[in-house]
Amino acid sequence: MTLEIAIERPGSDPLYRQIAAQIRARIRDGRLPAGARLPTVRSLAGELGVTRNTVHDAYGRLQRDGWVESIVGSGTYVRRRIQPRDMLQAMADDMSPPTAERLLGDLLRLAGLSDRSASGVRSMAISVPDPELVPTNAIWDAISGLRGEHGLLAGYGHPMGDPTLRVALAEECAARGVPAEPNEIIVTAGVTQGLALATRVLADPGDAVLVEQPTYLGCLHVIAALGLRPIGIPLDDEGPDIAAIEAAIREHRPRFLYTVPTFHNPTGITMSPSRREAIADLAARHDLWIIEDDVYGRLSYDGPPPPAIAAFDRAQRTIYLSSVSKTLAPDMRIGWVVAPKAIRERMLALRYATDLCLPTILQRALATLLNDGALDRHLAHCLPIYRRRRDALMMALRHHMPEGVTWTQPRGGLCAWLTLPQDERLRDVHRLALRYGLAVAPGEAFWTSTPDDIHLRLAFGHHDEATIWSCVELLARLIDTRLTWEEGDAVRLAGWTPLV
Amino acid sequence: MTLEIAIERPGSDPLYRQIAAQIRARIRDGRLPAGARLPTVRSLAGELGVTRNTVHDAYGRLQRDGWVESIVGSGTYVRRRIQPRDMLQAMADDMSPPTAERLLGDLLRLAGLSDRSASGVRSMAISVPDPELVPTNAIWDAISGLRGEHGLLAGYGHPMGDPTLRVALAEECAARGVPAEPNEIIVTAGVTQGLALATRVLADPGDAVLVEQPTYLGCLHVIAALGLRPIGIPLDDEGPDIAAIEAAIREHRPRFLYTVPTFHNPTGITMSPSRREAIADLAARHDLWIIEDDVYGRLSYDGPPPPAIAAFDRAQRTIYLSSVSKTLAPDMRIGWVVAPKAIRERMLALRYATDLCLPTILQRALATLLNDGALDRHLAHCLPIYRRRRDALMMALRHHMPEGVTWTQPRGGLCAWLTLPQDERLRDVHRLALRYGLAVAPGEAFWTSTPDDIHLRLAFGHHDEATIWSCVELLARLIDTRLTWEEGDAVRLAGWTPLV
Repeated sequence: MTLEIAIERPGSDPLYRQIAAQIRARIRDGRLPAGARLPTVRSLAGELGVTRNTVHDAYGRLQRDGWVESIVGSGTYVRRRIQPRDMLQAMADDMSPPTAERLLGDLLRLAGLSDRSASGVRSMAISVPDPELVPTNAIWDAISGLRGEHGLLAGYGHPMGDPTLRVALAEECAARGVPAEPNEIIVTAGVTQGLALATRVLADPGDAVLVEQPTYLGCLHVIAALGLRPIGIPLDDEGPDIAAIEAAIREHRPRFLYTVPTFHNPTGITMSPSRREAIADLAARHDLWIIEDDVYGRLSYDGPPPPAIAAFDRAQRTIYLSSVSKTLAPDMRIGWVVAPKAIRERMLALRYATDLCLPTILQRALATLLNDGALDRHLAHCLPIYRRRRDALMMALRHHMPEGVTWTQPRGGLCAWLTLPQDERLRDVHRLALRYGLAVAPGEAFWTSTPDDIHLRLAFGHHDEATIWSCVELLARLIDTRLTWEEGDAVRLAGWTPLV
Repeated sequence: MTLEIAIERPGSDPLYRQIAAQIRARIRDGRLPAGARLPTVRSLAGELGVTRNTVHDAYGRLQRDGWVESIVGSGTYVRRRIQPRDMLQAMADDMSPPTAERLLGDLLRLAGLSDRSASGVRSMAISVPDPELVPTNAIWDAISGLRGEHGLLAGYGHPMGDPTLRVALAEECAARGVPAEPNEIIVTAGVTQGLALATRVLADPGDAVLVEQPTYLGCLHVIAALGLRPIGIPLDDEGPDIAAIEAAIREHRPRFLYTVPTFHNPTGITMSPSRREAIADLAARHDLWIIEDDVYGRLSYDGPPPPAIAAFDRAQRTIYLSSVSKTLAPDMRIGWVVAPKAIRERMLALRYATDLCLPTILQRALATLLNDGALDRHLAHCLPIYRRRRDALMMALRHHMPEGVTWTQPRGGLCAWLTLPQDERLRDVHRLALRYGLAVAPGEAFWTSTPDDIHLRLAFGHHDEATIWSCVELLARLIDTRLTWEEGDAVRLAGWTPLV
């Protein structure tokens, strides 16, 4: 086994700490899974050209911090149950700037820490459904009900997606105002695959593309991976600024605009109907493609959401994406795309050359859930819960936040967006919060470059109202403390125990 | 609903036949799913600018051929159960050259027709496991056993793959001579995704890449989708020709060699150990990457298979791919990649920008199947069955084939490769075979260009020995008949009823 550890000598850090840090990083990012055995002290010392004592110290440090355990006569193993607080600690210690890729990885891992009772760690960092609200039983019933079906596992599925599911998805699209026949829908591995396929079809490396500023982290990552040039469009209360889009079209000749018009991630803003019309109109006039990510579209708390942009688009310039990751469960990994014929054909050709098809079992289970109304029943159950959490967040922000902090008023979706006073001492308040057991997402992760302003994204879907209240209270106290910071002054934080 | 039909006027075909043919094509490729409603005669006539009679005739033709059914007072619908023979007929009628994409689509759809009792249609076209041998119960047990597990559906999986599965896959790799730690494995959506990710990391549009000639159809499709330039390397009994690889390296500076060294698809050839060493050596000397597709590696019928090329590769130039699509079930959509660190990191970054992660349920189910020995038990059960089918195929070929036909002797895998006499009358014998209810894959589909020789791939996994025997008998008779073809002469085929 090679751990692929690189040590600097002379490094700024003692060797044993360098080794421990690198092993911890591998555990943290999941590459050293629970139960994996570390090399013996002797072999790692030999491999790295250090003394056995150094490796011994590194392992001792890891064991003390709860990352590994030593079994007498057997060896040293990654602990089966890493405590979330240890993982948060490691993230808090990591001072490197949050790139889209790293932050996405951190968020995915945090999303996996669904055991909320552990260590009092609270996450408002991740825009996913509350694991406790995922309709696990209904999904399992739908899966189990397929057991008798002939030929489900034996063949390859259709590259456009299971036909039964596509019929059901046509109804889903209609509910969002998007007219689509089953033969116009491609089933994808979440919105991510739809976005990745559309982006590859529409743009070549070096091309400019427009994104809202801020925008969905995963989109920035897709754009970076393809070598595209993202141009940020500022948002106002009604959505992306039309004049800014027009200016960017003239200056950069972008290939497409990626937008989350309904309950935008990360801000929670909803694009107004007139802005939707204006954008559809702009796309028609300038031959601009619109990639519309409607993943939050059905999470509406204050009456029916506006129809998708695709519903306003008579010129067929919209590639419409959605999924059940925010409504049912992320781990079904099922999304869908509605695109004009020429684009759809090219996306389908790429799909053949990407992953061929999705597992039919999960597609057919989703078809069952949609056809028997389970998604609608589930939304009827959980939307009032999310609405109360949204209300609690708004109330807590009003009550606790110091002057100078502002925030958005989301009418749906799972997140709100804070703007902090422009004070450099607040740049790393998200890192300070991690030390106190609260995870929130730093605004710069959603930016094409470093933003001037200081923002935080608060995802409110995960916690009950009381917890949201106390999270906001803590966050407000940390902001307040930082703003009046004196070396050694921690008085205002009495009552909260940091993790260190 | 728009059917996106394009009619030529004046066309070579009557309008009603053009319309029927295009609707049939949409049903055939799955875009018009079973149960979909066709437009009314009036609306389609209006849309296309033809008389209602023309549309009426088109629908009548489709109904007569069993593609659609008319429900009085309701409309015309795609039939719920399209007969495989109808589908084969449509494929036989399609005279366009078989592109990789279209043939891959046809094969995937044929693979879905697992109801072998229907219409006496027999397929030797698809290199997949026998659906009757897929261990459906064991897989369903593994899936059902996960029902109680906390947090399975709620989160996002790890982009490298479920850690539990990666621990089990490390053992699988070790069994093929490939040393890999769990943290060196990326779980992929079948070999296809591993191949797609590796190819994108290693090559840019316009780059030359080496493939065996013939090679796996899906690889040609990935290469075409990325705009790469495939260079075919001829095969001998021991694998790809070393001198030809060296010449191609000098002339084309290729980025990688894609190879299926063990039970090659489509030929069934197994690369000798010395050839594996030579290729590993070549890769080290010329900085050539090897993409090794080991998807058939465990389907060995005559003793243990040779270790993977990766086992010979001390210079770390191999990207090793495998999956359970041929051993357990294609529709689990799970494969894996072992790659050197630098390549692996870049593949992982692309994975974030591709589909994020796979559904955890199916990954965890596979981990259970691997850990409790279900895969090994399944192989112990089905390998002797496949071996008997391979033996039956060899015996039938010796017994029936006319002089001038030669074939490979596969020691594992699911296919054998026929070389027919170089007689142009045999170019479309696969199409003739379709009319007699037998599907085999034409050799040109596996070629980077049109091959000089005439080949067929026979996949022997699907049928029992008696059926294989009669398929080969029919094919031999068709070849014989074509070789002595006189207009109107069908005497030798008495006893077989064509589908037309």
